[in-house]
Amino acid sequence: MIPTDETWFEGTDECWLAGPAVASVLGRRIELPDDDAVRTVARDLALLRRRHGIVEPAAGPTLRLVRDPSRTDLTAEGFEVTADGDDLVLTAGGGPGLGYGFWRLLTCGPEALTGPQVPAYRVRMLNHWDNLVAQELGQVERGYAGGSIFFADGRVRADLTRVRDYARLVACLGINAVAVNNVNVHEAETRLLTDHLDGVARVAGVLAEYGLSTYLAVSFASPVTLGDLDTADPLDPRVVAWWSETTRRVAARVPTFGGYVVKADSEGRPGPFTYGRSHSDGANLLADALAPYGGTVFWRAFVYDHRQDWRDRGTDRARAAYDHFLPLDGTFRDNVVLQVKHGPMDFQVREPVSPLLLGLRETSLACELQITQEYTGQQRHAVYLGPCWSQVLAFPTGLTDTVPPLRDVLRQPHRPRSGLTAVANVGTDRTWTGHPFAQANLYAYGRLAWDPALDPTDVLREWAAATYEPTVAEAVVEILAGSWLTYERYTAPLGVGWMVQPHHHYGPSVDGYEYSPWGTYHFADRDGVGVDRTVATGTGCTAQYPPEVARVYESLADCPDELLLFFHHVPYTHVLHSGATVIQHVYDTHVAGYDEVVAMVRRWEEVAPLVPEPTRSEVTVRFAEQVRSAAEWRDQVSTYFWRKSGVPDAHGRVIP
Amino acid sequence: MIPTDETWFEGTDECWLAGPAVASVLGRRIELPDDDAVRTVARDLALLRRRHGIVEPAAGPTLRLVRDPSRTDLTAEGFEVTADGDDLVLTAGGGPGLGYGFWRLLTCGPEALTGPQVPAYRVRMLNHWDNLVAQELGQVERGYAGGSIFFADGRVRADLTRVRDYARLVACLGINAVAVNNVNVHEAETRLLTDHLDGVARVAGVLAEYGLSTYLAVSFASPVTLGDLDTADPLDPRVVAWWSETTRRVAARVPTFGGYVVKADSEGRPGPFTYGRSHSDGANLLADALAPYGGTVFWRAFVYDHRQDWRDRGTDRARAAYDHFLPLDGTFRDNVVLQVKHGPMDFQVREPVSPLLLGLRETSLACELQITQEYTGQQRHAVYLGPCWSQVLAFPTGLTDTVPPLRDVLRQPHRPRSGLTAVANVGTDRTWTGHPFAQANLYAYGRLAWDPALDPTDVLREWAAATYEPTVAEAVVEILAGSWLTYERYTAPLGVGWMVQPHHHYGPSVDGYEYSPWGTYHFADRDGVGVDRTVATGTGCTAQYPPEVARVYESLADCPDELLLFFHHVPYTHVLHSGATVIQHVYDTHVAGYDEVVAMVRRWEEVAPLVPEPTRSEVTVRFAEQVRSAAEWRDQVSTYFWRKSGVPDAHGRVIP
Repeated sequence: MIPTDETWFEGTDECWLAGPAVASVLGRRIELPDDDAVRTVARDLALLRRRHGIVEPAAGPTLRLVRDPSRTDLTAEGFEVTADGDDLVLTAGGGPGLGYGFWRLLTCGPEALTGPQVPAYRVRMLNHWDNLVAQELGQVERGYAGGSIFFADGRVRADLTRVRDYARLVACLGINAVAVNNVNVHEAETRLLTDHLDGVARVAGVLAEYGLSTYLAVSFASPVTLGDLDTADPLDPRVVAWWSETTRRVAARVPTFGGYVVKADSEGRPGPFTYGRSHSDGANLLADALAPYGGTVFWRAFVYDHRQDWRDRGTDRARAAYDHFLPLDGTFRDNVVLQVKHGPMDFQVREPVSPLLLGLRETSLACELQITQEYTGQQRHAVYLGPCWSQVLAFPTGLTDTVPPLRDVLRQPHRPRSGLTAVANVGTDRTWTGHPFAQANLYAYGRLAWDPALDPTDVLREWAAATYEPTVAEAVVEILAGSWLTYERYTAPLGVGWMVQPHHHYGPSVDGYEYSPWGTYHFADRDGVGVDRTVATGTGCTAQYPPEVARVYESLADCPDELLLFFHHVPYTHVLHSGATVIQHVYDTHVAGYDEVVAMVRRWEEVAPLVPEPTRSEVTVRFAEQVRSAAEWRDQVSTYFWRKSGVPDAHGRVIP
Repeated sequence: MIPTDETWFEGTDECWLAGPAVASVLGRRIELPDDDAVRTVARDLALLRRRHGIVEPAAGPTLRLVRDPSRTDLTAEGFEVTADGDDLVLTAGGGPGLGYGFWRLLTCGPEALTGPQVPAYRVRMLNHWDNLVAQELGQVERGYAGGSIFFADGRVRADLTRVRDYARLVACLGINAVAVNNVNVHEAETRLLTDHLDGVARVAGVLAEYGLSTYLAVSFASPVTLGDLDTADPLDPRVVAWWSETTRRVAARVPTFGGYVVKADSEGRPGPFTYGRSHSDGANLLADALAPYGGTVFWRAFVYDHRQDWRDRGTDRARAAYDHFLPLDGTFRDNVVLQVKHGPMDFQVREPVSPLLLGLRETSLACELQITQEYTGQQRHAVYLGPCWSQVLAFPTGLTDTVPPLRDVLRQPHRPRSGLTAVANVGTDRTWTGHPFAQANLYAYGRLAWDPALDPTDVLREWAAATYEPTVAEAVVEILAGSWLTYERYTAPLGVGWMVQPHHHYGPSVDGYEYSPWGTYHFADRDGVGVDRTVATGTGCTAQYPPEVARVYESLADCPDELLLFFHHVPYTHVLHSGATVIQHVYDTHVAGYDEVVAMVRRWEEVAPLVPEPTRSEVTVRFAEQVRSAAEWRDQVSTYFWRKSGVPDAHGRVIP
């Protein structure tokens, strides 16, 4: 029996649960163990059969779900699908694995699932930057897909149907944790710990149906903000007691409470620095409060001087996280995870990997990615980020053979709470993600968090096949596979970043952050451009990398083209490994990037008639904006550097 | 008897009614005619005596107010103060003149009032950009002095005490009309014509006590917005009838209703272009509706393409008002006043005078000034604008002897509804204007609207003497006299304008509007800077001026330095009349401008102890911000042009 109030994606997109695998699973007889762990599976099977009108056959090929505790190789979360004649057997070591295996079968079918499927990381998390109350940047900060699925009218939603559908979608990917509110914790959201705890418990209950634990972003100043104390000093016994008691109440009310996410001493947020304490003092305070309940604190390393003087070339924001946190390695409790953005700046289309991720040796690490396209087209541009993340996880592959790749560093057994986290791109939009193609990014993130060695184009194909009919899927893969590099080509060149409109971050403004206090400069003058971060003559940022990598970045001759302006200030006439000068590279790539967008749109137009409405129009209207915006990027960046350098285009093109 | 609910500046600044003239008037016996026209004078005298505790003497020197209809030379608004032994006689031709004479006596005493005082213009208006409901830019658009004195909580205020005090302040200056709401008429404000008419009548009643008529800014689309019609086509008889009936209702409810102010087909506002009609069709529609009640429509000429392509160098926003409106000269009803911003762009610190103001021959004209310091420091910088306006009104004095100055053009008898209007700088702030020194701008505007030939430094002295004790007044005059030129020096050089942060317009961003759709470019490249508006090689804007003036602006050799980059694109090495190159001028003036601010602050610190709190702190805290901001301007502009030109400072100063 299905409760009448339970539904299956009513009025919203089914995403990767729309594909052929669903029907192939429903065509079987399905045997479930007599086990609480499959209650949600049983319920969803009933919903799915109703949705597709497929009655369970009385006989024939069977799918058997089996929990086998002897399969310790699978861990509690892993599973394996094997054939037994015409039957399929889904074996899991524990309850969570049964669920993940079942949802994956629905997504991509048994053929894609050969051998044991075990997640690489224990931490596979999504961070929502959702506010109870809309702020200047909207209800979902840096959200481009409508309002919050969790909150409305200043409280947790009464109807959590969309949260259930969302949990199901991300469970297909093996996600196991969700932080439901914005790391910039404003006043109303501080009270998630208190007044809104019943609502948090309801959300957590729905997420728990799909094995997801629930995290809260908290303000370090909560003891003060909530009016209970006059200090938030982490060494003050009253503060210790406050967090202990507050955490006890949350854990008592929310059985699947995972812990806290904290942005402290960052972009104006309060933190331990206020009290002359260190970040390990701050993080350990919360870790100790969480320890009795097995909880974890995710402590963000995004600490830098956001009131920098642009005249001061000695201060380098790219150094900040490493400079602040490396000396603290080894001082954190076991249940502290340092959450480090993948690059040293802030989710630019191209950055080197944060040196802190390789520098820390003792501390558990979460590498933070950004699924929401803050700096990559804001879900109006079709940009598939899988290749970007894959390259981050492979770092420093290609630069040296002697340093293990980040994806392996994140699974070192002595810091087992490591893994990936990412800022979600989801909202109340019908398609969940604004641009229908942005679903690919949510999908790819989840898949890479499960298996970081996957080929991102394979993941893209998997997503497309689960989402669109084959002809469309093929075109969508062609459109998206290289779209990250296309976006890079028509925006900020050679790793320099930041040429965006201030505040909202959409569209070009080459000098938009050049004279700002944010530490985000390109230093373009009439002779050259780029940031000298070398040890020899610059800020010394290169020395934060392992020596094998530092040598490459430090060397003007060896530094990869795509990061040249991140590490070096060079004349416009500098010749790249590609053979082009820097200035000609700027002209050429901007023209090429725009032309690639036009080609993407042509490819889309070929298959658009096969795509049902409203998806067809939703994509088409966004492509029109992407073309317009790409031309604007091309022309503003080209004109800016033409006016500055005075070097004409070698191909004789007229720059406006 | 004073009604108990009437007060004299309770909790707010008395501005120029704080000076010695008040006591000198109160020291006399005062004889008023038995005349309704002096009811407000009588009431205010009683309030003033209570405020100062000065009882009217039973005998001794007397001030006699006399209405003498035979003095037609004074018109209804003029007055004359004469001595009769120890007595003073204030003679006026009509009721309004009695009031103006009395308030002026309170402001500056009889010594300043020799000979007949008759206003140069019939139109002496203030435009408030106040909204009922706060918008993105606040409740008062481009307001820097708190909220609206007229509106709160989406309606006209219940308590209009501050409106009465404000009316008294501006009556001291001879202002005779106030438009109470923003020319950008949003949805709520459209209903000032309907739902809020009672509130408008109450405001108008208070303003009328001081001889001020009340205007409403209206949306051209009102017949549609208010839901009555499906068109606002000015030639549709239903639209004609709608405006006729609506205006009849307003005029019936508001005896001192002056008419409408309209921003049509401008920055996204609706207008006659929507219906393929001309601006005279649009303006005449409203003029005809107003004619039975003697009303006037102020039709703004601020019409240009705000969706311009920055790549298109052929389109010139500076040409737009002239191109749109000159062909319509002679097609407007007598009760249409074309309201033209003083410069062809938008209230930049330096612009030439709008050629439309001299070009139109048959149309009544209001030259629109901006008292609120949108582009001149937003009432955080001390900038006295009197010299700027005085120079506008004297234009083209100094360039040619054969063209009469604008101040005389505005009083040509065949278009009697001409004069000045200005965007007010007033809000609910204690001092009315945010910066206490910004009161000087409100004062100077009113005085120049009464007598445009006044020396602006004399006006400044008059204001300071009426506001501060003599030692402070002397210092404040020294501080403010040259402050407009100081502001020009540390901001955008040589008439080029627009180097401000987009949207809010505070602080420097040299390229902030360079690649925008707003038509606001400087075209700086590595070789030079400026906008070529010549006939010979540019947009031909110079040809919109009278030939004697056009010749000067067209000529690179003759064009005044301060407007060079407005009319010409020149190399950085171009030598100015001053003897400096353009680039060296940029460096030198930015250093000088900042140094002048520092000197202003030093002068202030000498007299600050003599200034009572909270005024002392209000000024001091703003000066700290002005110093910080001036350094930011100096450094950003200098660095921008240093990076672009590569020309070092001739004085060897290090540019950051």
